[in-house]
Amino acid sequence: MTKPIEVRNPRTGKFDYVIIPPPPKLLSQQCHRLRRGQIPWQEMGIEGRIEALQQWKQALLSDRKQLTDALVNDTGRLSTSMLEIDSFLSSIDRWCNLAPQLLQETAKNTTIPFIALQQSAVPYTLVGVISPWNFPLLLSTIDTIPALLAGCAVIVKPSEITPRFVAPLMTALNTVPKLRDALNFVEGAGQTGAALIEDVDLICFTGSVETGRVVAETAARNFIPAFLELGGKDPAIVLESADLDLATSAILWGSVVNSGQSCLSIERIYVAESIFAEFYHQLVAKAHRLQLAYPTVESGEIGPIISENQAAIINEHLQDAVSKGAVIHCGGKVEELGGGWWCRPTVITEVDHSMKVMTEETFGPIMPIMPFSTIEEAIDLANDSIYGLSAAIFAESEELALEIGMQIDVGAISINDAGLTAIMHEGEKNAFKFSGLGGSRMGAAGLKRFLRKKAFLIKTNTSKDPWWFHDQE
Amino acid sequence: MTKPIEVRNPRTGKFDYVIIPPPPKLLSQQCHRLRRGQIPWQEMGIEGRIEALQQWKQALLSDRKQLTDALVNDTGRLSTSMLEIDSFLSSIDRWCNLAPQLLQETAKNTTIPFIALQQSAVPYTLVGVISPWNFPLLLSTIDTIPALLAGCAVIVKPSEITPRFVAPLMTALNTVPKLRDALNFVEGAGQTGAALIEDVDLICFTGSVETGRVVAETAARNFIPAFLELGGKDPAIVLESADLDLATSAILWGSVVNSGQSCLSIERIYVAESIFAEFYHQLVAKAHRLQLAYPTVESGEIGPIISENQAAIINEHLQDAVSKGAVIHCGGKVEELGGGWWCRPTVITEVDHSMKVMTEETFGPIMPIMPFSTIEEAIDLANDSIYGLSAAIFAESEELALEIGMQIDVGAISINDAGLTAIMHEGEKNAFKFSGLGGSRMGAAGLKRFLRKKAFLIKTNTSKDPWWFHDQE
Repeated sequence: MTKPIEVRNPRTGKFDYVIIPPPPKLLSQQCHRLRRGQIPWQEMGIEGRIEALQQWKQALLSDRKQLTDALVNDTGRLSTSMLEIDSFLSSIDRWCNLAPQLLQETAKNTTIPFIALQQSAVPYTLVGVISPWNFPLLLSTIDTIPALLAGCAVIVKPSEITPRFVAPLMTALNTVPKLRDALNFVEGAGQTGAALIEDVDLICFTGSVETGRVVAETAARNFIPAFLELGGKDPAIVLESADLDLATSAILWGSVVNSGQSCLSIERIYVAESIFAEFYHQLVAKAHRLQLAYPTVESGEIGPIISENQAAIINEHLQDAVSKGAVIHCGGKVEELGGGWWCRPTVITEVDHSMKVMTEETFGPIMPIMPFSTIEEAIDLANDSIYGLSAAIFAESEELALEIGMQIDVGAISINDAGLTAIMHEGEKNAFKFSGLGGSRMGAAGLKRFLRKKAFLIKTNTSKDPWWFHDQE
Repeated sequence: MTKPIEVRNPRTGKFDYVIIPPPPKLLSQQCHRLRRGQIPWQEMGIEGRIEALQQWKQALLSDRKQLTDALVNDTGRLSTSMLEIDSFLSSIDRWCNLAPQLLQETAKNTTIPFIALQQSAVPYTLVGVISPWNFPLLLSTIDTIPALLAGCAVIVKPSEITPRFVAPLMTALNTVPKLRDALNFVEGAGQTGAALIEDVDLICFTGSVETGRVVAETAARNFIPAFLELGGKDPAIVLESADLDLATSAILWGSVVNSGQSCLSIERIYVAESIFAEFYHQLVAKAHRLQLAYPTVESGEIGPIISENQAAIINEHLQDAVSKGAVIHCGGKVEELGGGWWCRPTVITEVDHSMKVMTEETFGPIMPIMPFSTIEEAIDLANDSIYGLSAAIFAESEELALEIGMQIDVGAISINDAGLTAIMHEGEKNAFKFSGLGGSRMGAAGLKRFLRKKAFLIKTNTSKDPWWFHDQE
């Protein structure tokens, strides 16, 4: 567990960075230190916590270049890294604005005249966050910020595939001692994550279904809540009435953003048969115009495939599809360039649900398209999945799109756009099926899940009798 | 699994009732039938569901005697059975009053001008409920009623120790066909419960920590939410300023109601040393006045110990305490009378936390009392437990009681009374530590946990560009 782990650079393929997982005893000590730090962190109140988080944000802003460089080295892509940093920084502001109101306690009316009710909320002491490599900064902080504002201490274990961004975060954190006592990032792989779960009071996990299941079972054994955000195989449905130009642009970006390495990227496209040919022609034409961000990060839009394992999975899905009769119109395979793995936007037709590319998470810029003849068929196809994260529907009528969306078993539905949950965090949504477990990480619930509710029931009359006597009158 | 199970009568010790667990295939078919029944149940809307539940209630009221007789045979006690039936019937009304408002959907404002948010909620299709023997009717319906109103179908497996009350429930249910298609009770023991979890979309379990852990792990493996209400070892703290007459009456009832067979019964009593002697003298005097409900159900207040296993555990805890120096002032053992197991209210002093009676769930009318010298000591003693269900505090000053309550790791605190959560269901509370997992079964959350949130994000501007372009402007 204490063996150093070498980290691959996604652009060069070279192992040019090393992380050193903490020995089990050190990890325990760090958790213990955070538990001690949580007491003043909670006691300082929401204003104090907001101030500390804003100080961290300022420290990060003043050395933004360092964070950007680290994230670019982790992921091999530039514009998405900048988007990620912006999104992270604005999430601090958004939660700081929302938190005071969400933490307000209110006395409640009761229907029993001789009992007063006072409702209180207690933060979980130590929250664990285990996050993946596809958006290293965003997904390691999406649960962390609201948990901190709720008054919890937080320990984060980011992916061992993209660990470089942690150093600049820690440098900034070290300038805010109060926050540093309540927040820590640890380096490590699966073993460190497994050890961490045993030491926390609540676990947030973003990653694969397979690991998510182990996390959930371990949490269950320890009676701690687990919030899981797992895979997706998000469908897009394009009705005959859809604005085709809008639909192809949105679906293209929804598929290829971050080179498809997003749980909410569009991975299956169902198009009304009457517009099928026109749709895929337009999609291929637009896909064709996109360039790889190679040889430099500014050469084009499409960054490298970050994880070498994932590169193999994408190729496996493509080969499986072709062997079963699929037709590739552009792109078509993950190839090596200068030591990194790259995949051009790939449009595929003649696909069906016997192919992995239509049923398993591909996590690449792959757009398999199937025609449908009736809306019922489109709904059935969209629901024919073990996943239930999100979906997109394109239609002229908003009412019809809503009606279809009501019948699709997913937690979030973008209408006439794709992946809107990436920028709109106000809507509460649950993951359906194997896409996750636990309450919504968005909306007010995203903060409230870090609080345990405590009810004070106060006998207010002066009778000497307990309630049983009253009840029997 | 299909072998008939003989059921013991807690008053006579005779095995005078038989249940026949469904073969696995039949259980699956029943779940399938309920899934089909859930569709019209959800589609009929909240008014229709309220009407159906009220019809069930009327049918139960018109043959209340049958239900009472069955419950008395299950549990051996009368007045608590009547209280249980009243409480169950009034819970139907309470949830019917609350549900329409809780199910209302509201459009939400958003901070992003070109996205509209519409929030919707979808009931889990099939909810499973596994319930214990101590309050057979109440605890098999406490999750069932809000789940049904939320629009779920529900399958309930009550304890094999107290199954007789199901027949009259079903007779009444058969008069309401719409509800019968969405609700079923199955007979069986652990194996049937285990099979049931594999077939539902959400599981509510009330019972032991040991079984609860298995339920939670199975649910985690299947990615379904688990709501667990497990054991308790509720402490009472009595300050020097407390009204002694009130405190002894409330604690006595909080300990002996249902012969202590309640997860929220008082099982540990910490009393300020200055009033310790007076307190236990008064408690012993009051306890002494209570009579066993033997030979008839109306002979006294204290019913039999329902579960033969539990009778053995109570005796084991008492023997363990005495062997370590505890002094028993009244009661003192579970004894056999006419084939049943009975335990008189038992006050014990000279106890400490090396004894099972202070650390493990006893589930009997046992009142072990320890003195404390400082409030900090009382808080430490109260928190020295693997459980965190609820607590009671007795003090002249409500403010001081609240301040102490804030430091006790439990979800509900009664002030100047005991077990108020039994009648006051409006306060949201989480179980702490090993006392449970999942959201509050009380308050608005008690219904909302049966709904999955779904967010519709609608692009409202007419630009042909997806959001990525906007974001990069």
